[in-house]
Amino acid sequence: MTIIETVTGGTVTTPQGFSAGATYAGIKKKGENVLDLGILYSREPCVVAGVFTTNKIKSAAVVVNQQRLQNKGKVSAIIVNSGCANSSTGEQGLADAIETTEIVAKAIGIEPEEVLVASTGVIGVRLPMKSLRDGVNQVVLSPDGGHDFARAIMTTDTAPKEVTVAVKTKDATFTIGGVAKGSGMIHPNLATMLVFLTTDAAVAPDFLSQALREAANVSFNMISVDGDTSPSDTVLLLANGIAENKSISSGSPLAQPFQEALNQVCIHLAKAIARDGEGATKLIEVTVKGAINFEEARQAARTIVSSNLVKAAVYGNDPNWGRVTAALGRSGIEVNEPKLDVTMAAIPVLKNGRPLSFDRQTAVTALEQKEVIIVVDLHLGNAEATAWGCDLTEQYVVINSAYTT
Amino acid sequence: MTIIETVTGGTVTTPQGFSAGATYAGIKKKGENVLDLGILYSREPCVVAGVFTTNKIKSAAVVVNQQRLQNKGKVSAIIVNSGCANSSTGEQGLADAIETTEIVAKAIGIEPEEVLVASTGVIGVRLPMKSLRDGVNQVVLSPDGGHDFARAIMTTDTAPKEVTVAVKTKDATFTIGGVAKGSGMIHPNLATMLVFLTTDAAVAPDFLSQALREAANVSFNMISVDGDTSPSDTVLLLANGIAENKSISSGSPLAQPFQEALNQVCIHLAKAIARDGEGATKLIEVTVKGAINFEEARQAARTIVSSNLVKAAVYGNDPNWGRVTAALGRSGIEVNEPKLDVTMAAIPVLKNGRPLSFDRQTAVTALEQKEVIIVVDLHLGNAEATAWGCDLTEQYVVINSAYTT
Repeated sequence: MTIIETVTGGTVTTPQGFSAGATYAGIKKKGENVLDLGILYSREPCVVAGVFTTNKIKSAAVVVNQQRLQNKGKVSAIIVNSGCANSSTGEQGLADAIETTEIVAKAIGIEPEEVLVASTGVIGVRLPMKSLRDGVNQVVLSPDGGHDFARAIMTTDTAPKEVTVAVKTKDATFTIGGVAKGSGMIHPNLATMLVFLTTDAAVAPDFLSQALREAANVSFNMISVDGDTSPSDTVLLLANGIAENKSISSGSPLAQPFQEALNQVCIHLAKAIARDGEGATKLIEVTVKGAINFEEARQAARTIVSSNLVKAAVYGNDPNWGRVTAALGRSGIEVNEPKLDVTMAAIPVLKNGRPLSFDRQTAVTALEQKEVIIVVDLHLGNAEATAWGCDLTEQYVVINSAYTT
Repeated sequence: MTIIETVTGGTVTTPQGFSAGATYAGIKKKGENVLDLGILYSREPCVVAGVFTTNKIKSAAVVVNQQRLQNKGKVSAIIVNSGCANSSTGEQGLADAIETTEIVAKAIGIEPEEVLVASTGVIGVRLPMKSLRDGVNQVVLSPDGGHDFARAIMTTDTAPKEVTVAVKTKDATFTIGGVAKGSGMIHPNLATMLVFLTTDAAVAPDFLSQALREAANVSFNMISVDGDTSPSDTVLLLANGIAENKSISSGSPLAQPFQEALNQVCIHLAKAIARDGEGATKLIEVTVKGAINFEEARQAARTIVSSNLVKAAVYGNDPNWGRVTAALGRSGIEVNEPKLDVTMAAIPVLKNGRPLSFDRQTAVTALEQKEVIIVVDLHLGNAEATAWGCDLTEQYVVINSAYTT
């Protein structure tokens, strides 16, 4: 028996041994209640896993983190700033990212190689190193600091995104927490997707990486706000082992509970990002069932949830199933039209490839909900995948057509 | 010496031997000056080539046309209706499409196999066969009918799209004409991309198909309004041979002039479609140079011109080159950031991967033009490709979030 429970008010510092702090260092424009620098710290060095942007153009922080993860050393701290992405900044940007980790290492009394770094904000501009140095000196690390850390990494986000789950099995008790930011999949002036996950479980390095990849594939890789990716997209998972369970590895009794709990945390944060998409008024969830394999289900679900026309139809409470089938048709997966079923907001609109008559006003009312679920059943196999996104609104265009400065 | 000239006021009936006519058959809602049924006819049977949607869900007309093209018979007429797409209509839809060709064949006195058919409009609804039959009887075919034909195929288009070029070489004189409709790449209620091309040149069937594929690859396959494709997308090219040139085949002296003229016609129509994108205020042209091969250049140009964030930035006159490089980076092609040059509206914004300082107001003013050209030079090879699209505006969202009916 495994019990996985959401911890009320949980955040990235809820797992044992983690502390965090944040400050306003003057990197973002000053506003009320603004934080722009956060540090996350574990009193025990952590096993670490990471997933990074697939964009060919990578920010300096991504390059530095990838190098440190390759070295397979343990990690004790992550420093994150918002307001400046340190991207398209060349060799100088790399030097600045490395110096940032040195500043943190010196302040805490650890090695620079134990520090990872993330930056989000305007691109093509150098990190303001003096502000950053002064900011690090102002930060107070505390076990209560997770909420401030979550706010410090926000850019166009309208709300912080945090979650923690506690896992109890007969053999062990451990906790997984996480924070995320991101409201456009990219928004090079201001935004990117950053996710920081912590656990007090003891986990073997190889399994930690494998579990994070698997969790990302059903969560962060299944959301789309606008189809773009950022040079800075980063997901990091730290495991400090303070829960003193028998180290979790592939096939060990705790592997499955750990994976399930990690998936829950990641899906929660992914949905929070999609729901907070720029200008969005609704979360869209698309499930594709009956596919011949998971990859095809995934491809179809992502294509449908990313379609501008589907997104605009959901915004307009329009049960326009033709846009769903058109996006499905261009996704490239195998489709047999006479087998196709579609429901929108639980209303069957297409059965065996033929339109069903339905009461338009009932459908419009159903689509007025804050979460709109679209289900496509291909009836070709047993594979299934779910993707999340948001509606496309005039406000998205307004946000994204504003000047850079 | 070859002279290719645009014919002023030219349309699909400008090449010799073609006539056309249109009427209001009551398929669309009645409006002022509305036509919804058009017929294009050649007095000599034509060699035909076609390019169709890659969407796995195809309309009845596409299925019928593909079958007839496989049979390699000659074609004398095309009937097109707007207002009803005859898509997602199953076996009945196929029977209706075939009956439509029979009605036209009987009215003109030709075989049904000589008739092709295209439909655009609401999906999931049967063709109103009585209206269609009555409509066909009202149509008057005339060499002046091309302009009416161009209007009859429009849906959300704000203007008809027509062009003709005349080709003169020492061996022959011939003409290629074309009409197109389409303002969203898909818009299953109302729209789709339809293109009808005519020529009086004598062309061998194999070369006609090859030339059309090549022309489509540098024109219709290089435009994006919203990234979606329609179950009805169709390009048809009829060649009636009335110009009495020596039949053009691969490698023959007229092959190159024919290809160039056909490319010009297709690029003209493709740009007209992109410029008339739903809600658009500007045409965006993206050229990617210095790629290692054409396929990579094409992939990058299409990804950039399709990016919502690039489209919104152009709408806002925002010289936001970070969105261009981010889209480039996720396109999957080979990129070496330190070699990258970018210009927006002729203003250099990135050189050797590093941001250039430029006067913001000058850049904003440059971006206020109706055609915004973005050039990316990868400096990796010699391949180059150009793609066209339009800006993303609040009006796009308004148009596409309206109810189906």
